[in-house]
This record gives sequence, structure tokens and C-alpha cells, in this order.
Amino acid sequence: DIVPVTRALISVSDKTGIVEFATFLASQNVHLLSTGGTAHQLRQAGLTVTDVAEYTGAVECLDGRVKTLHPKVHGGLLGVRGNPQHEREMQDNGIQNIDMTILNLYPFEQTVNSGAPMAQCIENIDIGGPSMLRSTAKNHAFTTIVTSPDQYAKVQACMQQHGGTRLALRQALAAQAFALSAAYDSAIATWFSEQLTDNDANVPEPVVARIYQPAFPLKYGCNPQQSPAKILSRLGSKLPFDVKNGTPGYINLLDAANAWQLVLELQQATGLAAAASFKHVSPAGAAVAVPLNDLEMQAYEVQPEDAAALTPVALAYLRARNADPMCSFGDFCAVSEQVDEATARYLKKEVSDGIVAPSYTPQALEILKAKKGGKFIILEATPDYQPGDFEYREVYGMTFSQKRNDVIIGKQHMENVVTAQKEMNVRDAIVASICIKYTQSNSVGFAKDGMMVGVGAGQQSRVDCVKLAGRKVATWYLRQHPKVLALPFRAGVKRQDRVNARVRYIEGDFTAEEKTRWEAMFTEVPQVLTDAEKDAFLKGSTGISLSSDAFFPFRDSIDHASKLGVSFVAQPGGSVQDDQVTEACNEYGMAMAFTGVRLFHH
Amino acid sequence: DIVPVTRALISVSDKTGIVEFATFLASQNVHLLSTGGTAHQLRQAGLTVTDVAEYTGAVECLDGRVKTLHPKVHGGLLGVRGNPQHEREMQDNGIQNIDMTILNLYPFEQTVNSGAPMAQCIENIDIGGPSMLRSTAKNHAFTTIVTSPDQYAKVQACMQQHGGTRLALRQALAAQAFALSAAYDSAIATWFSEQLTDNDANVPEPVVARIYQPAFPLKYGCNPQQSPAKILSRLGSKLPFDVKNGTPGYINLLDAANAWQLVLELQQATGLAAAASFKHVSPAGAAVAVPLNDLEMQAYEVQPEDAAALTPVALAYLRARNADPMCSFGDFCAVSEQVDEATARYLKKEVSDGIVAPSYTPQALEILKAKKGGKFIILEATPDYQPGDFEYREVYGMTFSQKRNDVIIGKQHMENVVTAQKEMNVRDAIVASICIKYTQSNSVGFAKDGMMVGVGAGQQSRVDCVKLAGRKVATWYLRQHPKVLALPFRAGVKRQDRVNARVRYIEGDFTAEEKTRWEAMFTEVPQVLTDAEKDAFLKGSTGISLSSDAFFPFRDSIDHASKLGVSFVAQPGGSVQDDQVTEACNEYGMAMAFTGVRLFHH
Repeated sequence: DIVPVTRALISVSDKTGIVEFATFLASQNVHLLSTGGTAHQLRQAGLTVTDVAEYTGAVECLDGRVKTLHPKVHGGLLGVRGNPQHEREMQDNGIQNIDMTILNLYPFEQTVNSGAPMAQCIENIDIGGPSMLRSTAKNHAFTTIVTSPDQYAKVQACMQQHGGTRLALRQALAAQAFALSAAYDSAIATWFSEQLTDNDANVPEPVVARIYQPAFPLKYGCNPQQSPAKILSRLGSKLPFDVKNGTPGYINLLDAANAWQLVLELQQATGLAAAASFKHVSPAGAAVAVPLNDLEMQAYEVQPEDAAALTPVALAYLRARNADPMCSFGDFCAVSEQVDEATARYLKKEVSDGIVAPSYTPQALEILKAKKGGKFIILEATPDYQPGDFEYREVYGMTFSQKRNDVIIGKQHMENVVTAQKEMNVRDAIVASICIKYTQSNSVGFAKDGMMVGVGAGQQSRVDCVKLAGRKVATWYLRQHPKVLALPFRAGVKRQDRVNARVRYIEGDFTAEEKTRWEAMFTEVPQVLTDAEKDAFLKGSTGISLSSDAFFPFRDSIDHASKLGVSFVAQPGGSVQDDQVTEACNEYGMAMAFTGVRLFHH
Repeated sequence: DIVPVTRALISVSDKTGIVEFATFLASQNVHLLSTGGTAHQLRQAGLTVTDVAEYTGAVECLDGRVKTLHPKVHGGLLGVRGNPQHEREMQDNGIQNIDMTILNLYPFEQTVNSGAPMAQCIENIDIGGPSMLRSTAKNHAFTTIVTSPDQYAKVQACMQQHGGTRLALRQALAAQAFALSAAYDSAIATWFSEQLTDNDANVPEPVVARIYQPAFPLKYGCNPQQSPAKILSRLGSKLPFDVKNGTPGYINLLDAANAWQLVLELQQATGLAAAASFKHVSPAGAAVAVPLNDLEMQAYEVQPEDAAALTPVALAYLRARNADPMCSFGDFCAVSEQVDEATARYLKKEVSDGIVAPSYTPQALEILKAKKGGKFIILEATPDYQPGDFEYREVYGMTFSQKRNDVIIGKQHMENVVTAQKEMNVRDAIVASICIKYTQSNSVGFAKDGMMVGVGAGQQSRVDCVKLAGRKVATWYLRQHPKVLALPFRAGVKRQDRVNARVRYIEGDFTAEEKTRWEAMFTEVPQVLTDAEKDAFLKGSTGISLSSDAFFPFRDSIDHASKLGVSFVAQPGGSVQDDQVTEACNEYGMAMAFTGVRLFHH
């Protein structure tokens, strides 16, 4: 399946490496055909080149629009080698075999992106290039299509080794070429439909082409049986992350995409370093860098001597990880600023799958690379990354297309306060709202001191979200109860076991077997934390902000939230029962803002 | 912007309507150029046609591979009208204006789908057609590209009205043409990459083109600010559903896609009619048609005189809707068989957004169409629909590709029973497992009598799922408590209010304001249902099956499940603590199967 190359047609706008490659071809006695600028450059390099016009014998006209659209070019590409009739007809018509085409297409998309006027964009629609590309690719049994400088080394190596091109290489290059052609015309079609001056309903809407270039394979998709799986980017676009360590999985990357957007928006909205801790595509916690008080330091096991060393990023991550530390076990985290050594040292102690951040100090990177036996996933966010405006998603053969949810939550969303109490905790209401923007719906979130203290994700009724998140709020708050702080752990009990043991102590619903194991962690058996003690302590909770991804249909959610120390509520508004919900807030002295923005997320 | 048509080139494989259209063109004094079979057919119809070969003067050779790849054809298409130099050069070279091209592309995809050998598929890659298509579309300021018989009437109408083609029409046709070309080369590229004989790692993986045709617009996406949004299908593929009534939204269709797959698989696995009730892309309930006992009939408000009329579909929906009727408020439902009048009458009473089913009796359709003031969404599933093997999803500029989760859960997954107790309730374990396959992760589900009785969706820790779903199981079971069944509702209290009032009675955590409203629904104030009464009644719960979408990392989930009457457990297995989990099951006399299949769903 080796085909020797006797004649190559070269027509490239990207001249990278072309002289070297053409020189190699000439050294293999390949006859070079070329056009315009390419021919000039090759001749300057001392190569012998035949002009295409000289070969076809056609007069160059129409500003060169048709110079390669000629039977002597396409016949040379398309003739079936070894077919006696074809060979005779080629000879009769002076058509010579062209065995390789090296070309780029005119840079249509760059022209559009440069803001060029319409006429110039149209002028940059390549006609001759795609035609030669397609003829060469079709006839790949005999011909080789080279469409990018990336491919020169490979073709050269193959010719050096085999004296020609192998079928497998020609096939792969042909597949690449058709994909390139599809991508090229897709870009043109998309641009064209945006230019239409008359949205005549009788003209059918054009099809949409999403062209992706493979970036890296995944071990599998959502589950091991969902293989193969891979990550791709839109052709010509970069990925939002660079993998610096480890092998991210499908769900890791879903977590990373959501967590990263969350912390970016938190930082932009508050001006503070932000962090998030994700599990199963919802945040277990998220926070901005607000200093810790003494009780919190005790509850989160921060030693007083370490407190001074807490950088803003470390502080944000510490808060994010301590919203629901039992759920955050094995999380994927994101931070909005460079990861420093202080943050890395803190992270090192936690069981975690990976991190995404804008950058890492060398010391931090060294610490993190050593985590999980070297398998800790480290992603670096692409600077100034802009995702596209529209997202496409295939589910059961339906393709869902929608504009990205690019609303920027800010203080303007907290200004329509409909309650008697007018003062919102704007920062915390924003933190909670941005957090639920990236939480699977239905969702509500509770925030205090710049930190999520309860996230209720994925529920089918609004009040279920409030109850679910509310239980987390109560557990978070009770972690500061004197009896919890005083639990007499034996030496040697591990950090995560201490975290879980405290939560179970608060929840109190042990089975017999579990109780025995639990009690063994202490130097003496702790006294029960009674419901009455919990209720009494919870009365001290106050100033919590609650945000909901959709309106409250009834007042029951507010009634429930009142038991948890909620003082501030943010929700879109728009229920027929808004008045009753507002009345409930007034009864409890809460301030409530109607944001006007629904934040469903799926 | 009107351009008269003096010369048209016609080359079509689909001859539908071409004689009529060409006859019209001839009547407008359009000179016809054509090739081969098309020319023959037009001449038979009495039209005067010039052969392209006669016009170009080139000898036809290479089996016609290059007949239109000629400067006289492409110059005629690409020449800039009104440009003196172009016009002079065209005259000098005998190039005449060609103002319209009417063509189809060779049917590449049909050839591939027919199972043709590779050489024949390659032969069906059209070269001349796409070249003319692209030249004509590029020069649409002057030329008209017609690529489908669907477009003839529109072009004819325009020419009759204006004496030529309008710019808006030429632009729209050009956009269509480039989209067609993109789709064509995308199909070729995809096919090519499947044929590659050598997965040489040095050959870059081809890009992937997903080509979609718009099906219908959506009012908006996940949220009102996410507009525009639409539903598309892969080019050449149909959608899984036909919209028979109403205007489905983005989340409705996500629900429909998941709910429909769920009921199809339930029916296939059990041989029984199946139904599901979805909210926010997770099931609130799902069930197969198992008869109701007397207590259930009371709890679900089925009158004894109506019981006999319950068809299997009605029975399945009734059970699905009664797993968690508070959550199912405003649901999207799916049933696996034709919707009959009995089912429609039951559905009519419920607050629901829409339904998907394989078909509807005329009476059922009439009842459902009248729901929600005529806005009830009715989808009919496409018979024998096959979604593609791979799904693509864009998130924040990353494209995730994975094989669909096409594992078929069946009794073989319940055979690896690792406990002392060996007997599983295979049907219920399968029902629970298929249900969680379509539930947002992490998830666990509890089933009894072919019916989900608790679905825990979207949680970040396994034991949280069990607790969340467990609370639902308890509420479901306690709806059969004598004190609940005996609640003395006033006449006139609505069905959904009765449903919610019972649930709140069981939950018992009223706020003061809520309690007053609640008590007003009764002829006398009901006695409290005490924790002790609830615990005592719950001891009667038994024979429940539990399925988990991933392994139990610790025994705590089993400990917790033991309080709810769980006798059967299905889970993938594979935790380092499998032994302790199995030991816990043995302590409680549960049977547990390791399915070996993880069922994460996002």
C-alpha cells in the first residue's frame, strides 16, 4: 500500500515549514507544482517549481478565481492509477499524475473575527482549495492530502522510511481533510445565517454544525460501562483548563467547570478571594475570604498559632471545605487566586480529588503533586478564557441548545427589597445566589460571613430544599456548641474521623453497632447532646442569608427558615403567593429582596 | 437587488419536479446547461438543453470525474458582473455568465447506510457538485444556488413576481448551501474515521462534526434569561417525540427524555406496564402495574367502585404518582403503553405539566388536550426510535463525549447475592435500579410492590441519600396509618390540599401560623400523631428493596435502612469495606446482590 510521490501541488497561505518540506520533497525527486506566492518563496529557496498556469495552459483570469479549477489539475488528482482507460485518456489530454496536495484554506474565520466588512469575508471564502482538498482526499487510494504544517514531519518520516506514503497515513489524512472541509463550510454557513437580511419564514433555517477537535481521552464517561469517552474543544478554540497533574475523569471535569465559574463570579462580585468544594456537580461548600472568629477556628480545627498564616485563598478554601465537611470528603475544589503554600498545606490534610486554580506557586505545586500518591488532579485555568455564547447538549437523540446563563449576580439584584425590614446582607445574599446558580435544581443555599453554611441540591419541592439545607445549617452551627468542641477524642483519631464523629454526635441517630464504634474514639463516653440543648443553642443563630433558585410558592419555606436564624432572603419573586411570603418575612423580621432572576441549573 | 437569470446549470440526482421547474425557467428565456441523465430527461420533455461538455469544449474523460471542474463553468459562476476586467476576460475566454445552479449532491450517506462496500462509498463522494455549489453560493451577489426540490416553488414565485431573484433569497439559499456542504463533508469525515485501518497514535484524531437540523424553538432554556433556545435533531435523524399538544419547555423535554427511557426499560425488564413522575430531571416516583391492596386504595383515594376499572397503565401511573405526591405536584409523566380513558381520567385530576406515551386512544387524547386550559403537553414517542451510541455535551467550552449508558438492567444483575439470606425480591430490586439509573447522582431508591416508595436524588454523600429517601419512605408508609386515613377533612377541601395536609400531619413540624391554617381543613382538630405512634407503626414496614447508584462506602447506610423495613439491597459492590457492609446486612437478615454496575447519572 506504499504509493511513491512523483508530483506535488503546493498552495499554502501559512508558509510555516513549507520551504523545508518542499526541499525534502525535491530531494526525493518530487516534481513541484505551485501557485503565486508559494511558488515565489520556493524559487527563492532555490527550488525548481512549475506554475500551475504553465501546467494547465489556461490563461490566468478573473483575478485568479479559477486557476486550479481545471481538468488538468483535478484529472491529475482524480485519475484512477492502473486503470488503462483513465491512463490513456490522461495521456491524450496531457494530464499528469498529481500524487500529493499541500494546501491551507483561506483564513475565513480569522477574517470574520477581525471584523472585516462583508465583502471581504466573502472574498475569503476559498473555492479552489476545498475542491483540490476534496479531490485529493477522495482519491486517497493513490493521493496524499496534507492540510497543515503539523503533518509535514509525519509525511516526511513515512516517505523516508517507505519511499512513499502508506495507505493508513493517506486514509487518516483524508479523514482529517474532510473534517477540515466540514468545519470550514460550517463556519461559513453559521456566519451566513447571521448575515441574512430578511428572516423570511419560508426560507428553512440552516442546519447547525458544531465541530470539535479531540483534546484527550477519558478512562470512561459517567460510569465504567460508558466507554469510550473523551474531552473535545470547539475547533479553533482552546479548553478552559490545562491539566498539570493527574488524570481527570468525566465527573471531575463537570465539577471543575462548575466550581471554577462559581469562584470566578464570587471573586468578581465581592472582590475577595473565593473557593468552592464540589461533589457530584453541586457545591458542598463555597466561600469568600472573611476572617474566622475564635469559635470557628476551634470548630474547624485551626490552631491559633496558624491563624496568622492564613492567606486569603487559604481562608476561602478553609471556609468552603467546612460548610459540610462530611460531604466534602473526596471533593473537587476551585479557588479564584494563585494557590500559595499556605493553601496547599491545608489542602494536603484533606481527602480531595483535585483542584482548579488560575496558577500555583512552585512550592504549592510541589506539595499538591505529591498528594494521592501523585494522582491528585491539578488544573490550571486558561487566562482570559471566554466560553461560547451558546451551549449544545444531546440527550436521547434530542439536541438542546440554549444561551449560557451569563447573568452576573451583583448588588443591583438585592435592591428590590419588598419587606418592612429594608437592610439586606448584600455580600452574603450574593454569595448564596451565585452558589445556587451552580447547584443542581431545585436548590436553596444559606450563607453567613461570606460562607455557605447549607446547600440543598437536586430536590423536587422547594420546601424539601429548605429542610435539606436547613439540616446542614443546624449541623454546621451546632459544631460550635461547647459540648461538641469539648468532645474528648483519644490521641491518634484521624482528622476526617473527628469531623464525622462530631457530625454524628450532633445528629444523634446512632444504630447500636455504630454507637459502640463511635464511643471507642473517646477517652470517656460523651454525654448525649439532647434535642432541648440543640434547640436552645440554635436560638443563638442569627443573621443568616437564604437564596432560592426559584420563587417560594408558599410561605412554608420561610416558616421553616425562621427556625434557623435566617434574617435575609433573596429569591426571584413572581409567585401568586408573593404577598403571603412577604408577610411571613415581615412576621419574622426578615428582609427579602426580589432578584427577578431565576437560577435553575441542570 | 433583483438579478435576472439568463443561464442555469442543472445537474440533479433527485429528479423530483425538475422537468416542471426547468420548463418554467425555459418559459422565462433561461438558457439551460446540463449533464448526462438530467439533460436526457429534460430533452425528452421537449426542452432545449446545451450539454456542459459542448459548452466547455473539453473532451469528457475519466468516467466524467472532471466534467464540470473547468474554468468555463467556474468562471461563469464566479465572474464578478459589472467588473470591466472580469467581463472582458470572460469574453476573451468564451466564458458565459451562469446565473443559477440547480443540483443535488450524490447520496453519500444513503450509500453508506445501505451497507455498500468501501470502494462504492468512496465513489459516491461528490466532487463536482460541492465545487459548483460553493462557487455559486460564494458569488450569491449575482448567482442563485438551488440544492433541493423544496426550494423550486420559492424561486419560481420570486422570479414570477420580480423577474429575477432577490438578494435576500440568494443569501438564504447560499447559507443553506454551505450548511449542506458542511453536513455532507461531516458525514464523509465521520465515516472515514470509522474506516481507519491503523490507529496510529501519531496521526492526529480527526475532528468531530455534529450537524443538527433545527426542529422547533423553545420559549427559553433553563431560565428566561437563557434565550434564544431551541431543540434540534441530528441531520437526517428524527426526534424521539412528536409534540401533539402544548409547548414543551427545556426542562419539560429533559424530564420527558429521562422519564420515557425509564418506563421503556421498566416495561422491558418486568413485562408490566410502567409509569414515572418526574420533577427537575429526577423521578419523584416510578412504578409498574401491580394491583393495589385495600389500605393502599384508601391511602391513594381510589374508590372501591373505581378499582375494577383500573387498567394496567392507570395502575402504574397511580402508583408512580403516589410515591411522593407532594413532590409530584406539577410533574411531567411518562407511561409505557397506550394511554386509555381510565388513565386520562385519573391524570385529569392531578396538577401536571405533561405526558409522554407511545400512543393515546381518541377519548384519552380529548380529555388530556382539555387539561390546563388546553396547554397540557402531550408527546407521542416515535416508534422503534434508536438514539445514537454517543452523546456530546458542551459545558463551559468543554465538550464531553461519552457512550450512552445503554446497560440493560435485568435479573442477571441480581444473581450475585453475597449475604447469608439468598432470596432477593428481583422485580423490586430491578425497578429500584432502573429508577436510579435515571436519577441525578448520588442517588438511592427504595421500592415495594413494583413501586418506588422513596427516591433520594442529587446528594453529595451516600448516607445523606439514604436518609433523604428514607424520610420519604417513612412518610409514604405512614400515609397508611389509621390516624392518617381517618383525618376528618371538611367537605370541599381539594385533592392536592388533602394530600399535602396528610404529609404535614405525618411530618408534624408545623409553625404556629401553618398549624392554624392546617387545622381549619378539618371538622375537628385531629389528635397529634406522636413519634412513638409513628415508630410503632413503622415497625410493620417490611420487604422493601433498596438500590444504590454506587457502592456503600460504610455500613452506616445499611444501619439506617434497617429502620425502614428494608429486606433486599442491590448495589454495585467494590468498596474496601464491602465485608463490613455485607456483615451489616447479615445482622439485619437482609439479602444483598452485587450488581457490578455503577449507575451515576448527570
